[in-house]
Amino acid sequence: MPLLGIVIGSKNDEPLIQPALDILQQLNIKYELSILSAHRNPDKVREYASKAKEKGIEVIIAAAGAAAHLPGVLASWTTLPVIGVPLPTSELKGIDSLYSIVQMPAGVPVACVGIGTPGAKNAALLSAQILGTKHKEIKDNYEKYKQKLAEA
Amino acid sequence: MPLLGIVIGSKNDEPLIQPALDILQQLNIKYELSILSAHRNPDKVREYASKAKEKGIEVIIAAAGAAAHLPGVLASWTTLPVIGVPLPTSELKGIDSLYSIVQMPAGVPVACVGIGTPGAKNAALLSAQILGTKHKEIKDNYEKYKQKLAEA
Amino acid sequence: MPLLGIVIGSKNDEPLIQPALDILQQLNIKYELSILSAHRNPDKVREYASKAKEKGIEVIIAAAGAAAHLPGVLASWTTLPVIGVPLPTSELKGIDSLYSIVQMPAGVPVACVGIGTPGAKNAALLSAQILGTKHKEIKDNYEKYKQKLAEA
Amino acid sequence: MPLLGIVIGSKNDEPLIQPALDILQQLNIKYELSILSAHRNPDKVREYASKAKEKGIEVIIAAAGAAAHLPGVLASWTTLPVIGVPLPTSELKGIDSLYSIVQMPAGVPVACVGIGTPGAKNAALLSAQILGTKHKEIKDNYEKYKQKLAEA
Amino acid sequence: MPLLGIVIGSKNDEPLIQPALDILQQLNIKYELSILSAHRNPDKVREYASKAKEKGIEVIIAAAGAAAHLPGVLASWTTLPVIGVPLPTSELKGIDSLYSIVQMPAGVPVACVGIGTPGAKNAALLSAQILGTKHKEIKDNYEKYKQKLAEA
Amino acid sequence: MPLLGIVIGSKNDEPLIQPALDILQQLNIKYELSILSAHRNPDKVREYASKAKEKGIEVIIAAAGAAAHLPGVLASWTTLPVIGVPLPTSELKGIDSLYSIVQMPAGVPVACVGIGTPGAKNAALLSAQILGTKHKEIKDNYEKYKQKLAEA
Amino acid sequence: MPLLGIVIGSKNDEPLIQPALDILQQLNIKYELSILSAHRNPDKVREYASKAKEKGIEVIIAAAGAAAHLPGVLASWTTLPVIGVPLPTSELKGIDSLYSIVQMPAGVPVACVGIGTPGAKNAALLSAQILGTKHKEIKDNYEKYKQKLAEA
Amino acid sequence: MPLLGIVIGSKNDEPLIQPALDILQQLNIKYELSILSAHRNPDKVREYASKAKEKGIEVIIAAAGAAAHLPGVLASWTTLPVIGVPLPTSELKGIDSLYSIVQMPAGVPVACVGIGTPGAKNAALLSAQILGTKHKEIKDNYEKYKQKLAEA
Repeated sequence: MPLLGIVIGSKNDEPLIQPALDILQQLNIKYELSILSAHRNPDKVREYASKAKEKGIEVIIAAAGAAAHLPGVLASWTTLPVIGVPLPTSELKGIDSLYSIVQMPAGVPVACVGIGTPGAKNAALLSAQILGTKHKEIKDNYEKYKQKLAEA
Repeated sequence: MPLLGIVIGSKNDEPLIQPALDILQQLNIKYELSILSAHRNPDKVREYASKAKEKGIEVIIAAAGAAAHLPGVLASWTTLPVIGVPLPTSELKGIDSLYSIVQMPAGVPVACVGIGTPGAKNAALLSAQILGTKHKEIKDNYEKYKQKLAEA
Repeated sequence: MPLLGIVIGSKNDEPLIQPALDILQQLNIKYELSILSAHRNPDKVREYASKAKEKGIEVIIAAAGAAAHLPGVLASWTTLPVIGVPLPTSELKGIDSLYSIVQMPAGVPVACVGIGTPGAKNAALLSAQILGTKHKEIKDNYEKYKQKLAEA
Repeated sequence: MPLLGIVIGSKNDEPLIQPALDILQQLNIKYELSILSAHRNPDKVREYASKAKEKGIEVIIAAAGAAAHLPGVLASWTTLPVIGVPLPTSELKGIDSLYSIVQMPAGVPVACVGIGTPGAKNAALLSAQILGTKHKEIKDNYEKYKQKLAEA
Repeated sequence: MPLLGIVIGSKNDEPLIQPALDILQQLNIKYELSILSAHRNPDKVREYASKAKEKGIEVIIAAAGAAAHLPGVLASWTTLPVIGVPLPTSELKGIDSLYSIVQMPAGVPVACVGIGTPGAKNAALLSAQILGTKHKEIKDNYEKYKQKLAEA
Repeated sequence: MPLLGIVIGSKNDEPLIQPALDILQQLNIKYELSILSAHRNPDKVREYASKAKEKGIEVIIAAAGAAAHLPGVLASWTTLPVIGVPLPTSELKGIDSLYSIVQMPAGVPVACVGIGTPGAKNAALLSAQILGTKHKEIKDNYEKYKQKLAEA
Repeated sequence: MPLLGIVIGSKNDEPLIQPALDILQQLNIKYELSILSAHRNPDKVREYASKAKEKGIEVIIAAAGAAAHLPGVLASWTTLPVIGVPLPTSELKGIDSLYSIVQMPAGVPVACVGIGTPGAKNAALLSAQILGTKHKEIKDNYEKYKQKLAEA
Repeated sequence: MPLLGIVIGSKNDEPLIQPALDILQQLNIKYELSILSAHRNPDKVREYASKAKEKGIEVIIAAAGAAAHLPGVLASWTTLPVIGVPLPTSELKGIDSLYSIVQMPAGVPVACVGIGTPGAKNAALLSAQILGTKHKEIKDNYEKYKQKLAEA
């Protein structure tokens, strides 16, 4: 049963986050990838977020571009930690996505990482740090990963 | 029964939109003002938007600041036209609010107006234009209003 | 007789809005497409806007880039609702177009959508929502369109 | 008969350009100050711009904020040189005004100066340089002014 | 022994994060507040981060303004999750702080929240979500907090 | 003898302004094109600007990118009107050039046009408007040009 | 004889850099403060920069706002290292100053520090580092200063 | 023994700074190029900066992108002058790098140059100016270089 839920708004966003999925595999973290649109299908997003905890999910990563409501909407429906990845946009270059994700109102946090693929990779690592708080194996894997980075 | 629903995220935002309420009164447009948070209470927002049409509401105005998901979340739950008013924020000056409202993904439109009180006033007038498409009295009142502006 | 007038400043802008025209066709909304420059030929724009209502037009969509005065100038000459689409520009990426369209002074509203083609598509959908206030068939078509989006 | 026409959109903008009027007085340049709104009363703006040349006006200065269409609209209706002064706005700080004025499409130029009162003062000096091309007394006055600046 | 370490760069930043400390108290989360400068005293920061884990700290919150290296430098020295709060700056309004914190290179994540006090409050809540992954009492307290928000 | 001096900082900038040179030819305005760097060879710039008036030059156009001091430095050494064209830059997209040109301090004006080639074309037209103040043939040519634009 | 020349464009800028002067006094670095305008009096700036080296000056600090040409113009006339301090401006908040100073073209460097008084203080410290390359006493004083900072 | 240390965060950044290395060769300045990551290997950066002075290094150049902590972290560990080169990033175009480098807090200066390769070239020239304060041959070489630029 996966501890990590990953949500993207469209199949087209998958290549941007693929390197994050590779990192999760290296860290041996099981995840479930879902494609859900906050705007076109809010009911599926509500249902996903409302049931995530009881399914055993402990952290959610959501990547979105432009108005980028997906992470914030998920956060509104769950008490699990939500990590938001602002995806680049063709004109505003992801500044729109960044502001829409990072400037959440006091009361409902989203943990925002950098724009695009580097951010997605860091979202994977941040989820490892959070899950590692409880799961010793993930913590150990993450520490080895960081050690290898330093030696590279 | 009001034709126009106005939603703000917090009682604190009311003074910013008061001049818009004054314009609605001048145009003799009945409205219903609600305070609902997209992030703190998504279920109430879902319920509001889902039932707006059957209550007779034909246009929704939503004002919000920062990540400013309120107009987009309302638009995700209804097929009524939603007008979004980006409210100013203390640091990013409402650019965050603007980007979060105006950059909606293709498929779910929000009609965005300018930042702050001038935008709120224009939201009122835009709602009059939209309602005026169907309601002749509102159209006439709006045309008289514009005529007076030109003469002022 | 079309209910919707679409205005662009140059033939070159047509490909950017073509996907919006496709949506209008799907929704069975008749439109009239005109190419008019607010700066090079203000008199034609004045004439267009002044006569739109009596020709039966109920909503205007105007797409423009850079100083992007077209939507605002049309709005100055008519009381019909005007939807503005900020087109991308090669250097400022449409931020110039966005600010020039969305920051209209209080009194003369323009309904602004997102930058570029996603915005143009939403302009088409917003026009359907506005026309749907009065025309039941358009409302029904729009509701079916949104339903299909959710199921896609 | 004044050689210079100055147009502002609202009485409220007058204090921002007063220091420019003082410079014009020092340079002994007669001007005519008009308050005209491009959006609320486009017909008066059209009329003003269309008749400016035959009244003897040789240069127009227009100051405006936010969507700031006034200089561009004037330029669309006349072949006289138009100087645009972007006025500060409460949230976007005049960046909106700047982009709306400076990013005119090829074909219809506006001579843009800096944001706010320093820009307005430079608009006055620029009008002196332009008028000085033809009027020797104004050229001489401007040269003396610049000389004094250097010595100050 | 506190589970949460909070680091600010200067005593002057304390009032900005005080509302976050109040939330932590409500949630009954013990924390340790330290004042350490990444630039003026990098060795103390290194020492703090290197020893945090063995002291029992499980999450670090760091608030900083301008070049705002503090969260990233802490993250470079530890494998604990680090939450970064971008503080407002007098000229660039915290955009500098935001970019410096959120745009971490792939490999070393920082969980960024919004600019200023709303962000600081969300940092407190995010730390509760992360600690709640392991500590059931904190999870329960956070869920009650969110419930109360919804009812407010 | 040319009435118009055009200055660029580098041979590489010539293609960006070529369309402006074509317009000048259409308007039958003689010009002199010089390549001078404000930073690498300030003395040549000083000499050029100091002698421009006595050579018969009545207007100067200067195009520059990045820190873009060329128009302002020319303006500091002459009382002739200087038109500044902000050239695009690879990273900041000409926003750097725009701010460096348009934000001149009160006392020494530069007439700024839009970024890049559209701006360069408008610089040519603005120079025609300024020269047309005195030279009837140029005024007539410019008016015919604008007439043709309207008919195109 | 001072080793350091400080130039500001206007007496009004002096309070902004006063804390930098205090640091120089603490470090026992003699300086000469001049008020010179790059735009209003370019000849004095040329003369100052051309003669600085022979007067014994080894580093120049120049603070300026808006188009902020002063550091770049000084750098064009001398081979001494020039440190530029971007001063805040009322609307663009010193972003204009920053871009105008930092984006110097390849070939003529300016060493840019942060916006406003914190930047001015760092300009003083950077001048100490540069002078310290040659002057052992200044190096020692700077190292003691940094030591004290760390201990504060 | 090199007087100049150059540090980049990744082998990938080398092509961006290669033209700076060419200038250093022309100026006959020996340098040492190191690849060190502030985030992945802070201990190596600490060690490098702490030992630079005793190895004979007198100036450090550090180039970095995005959160771009490298120059500031080096500056925190040494009293040598540090020149920071903001590298371009794929979405934020190096504005993130620029703000992270230039907005250092008062007390720990970094000398920032322009974004990307033009900035890197100026960093080389600035290092020549700084080293030239003490080393007459470098000063002479730099002055010849600038002379040649003026003649080119």
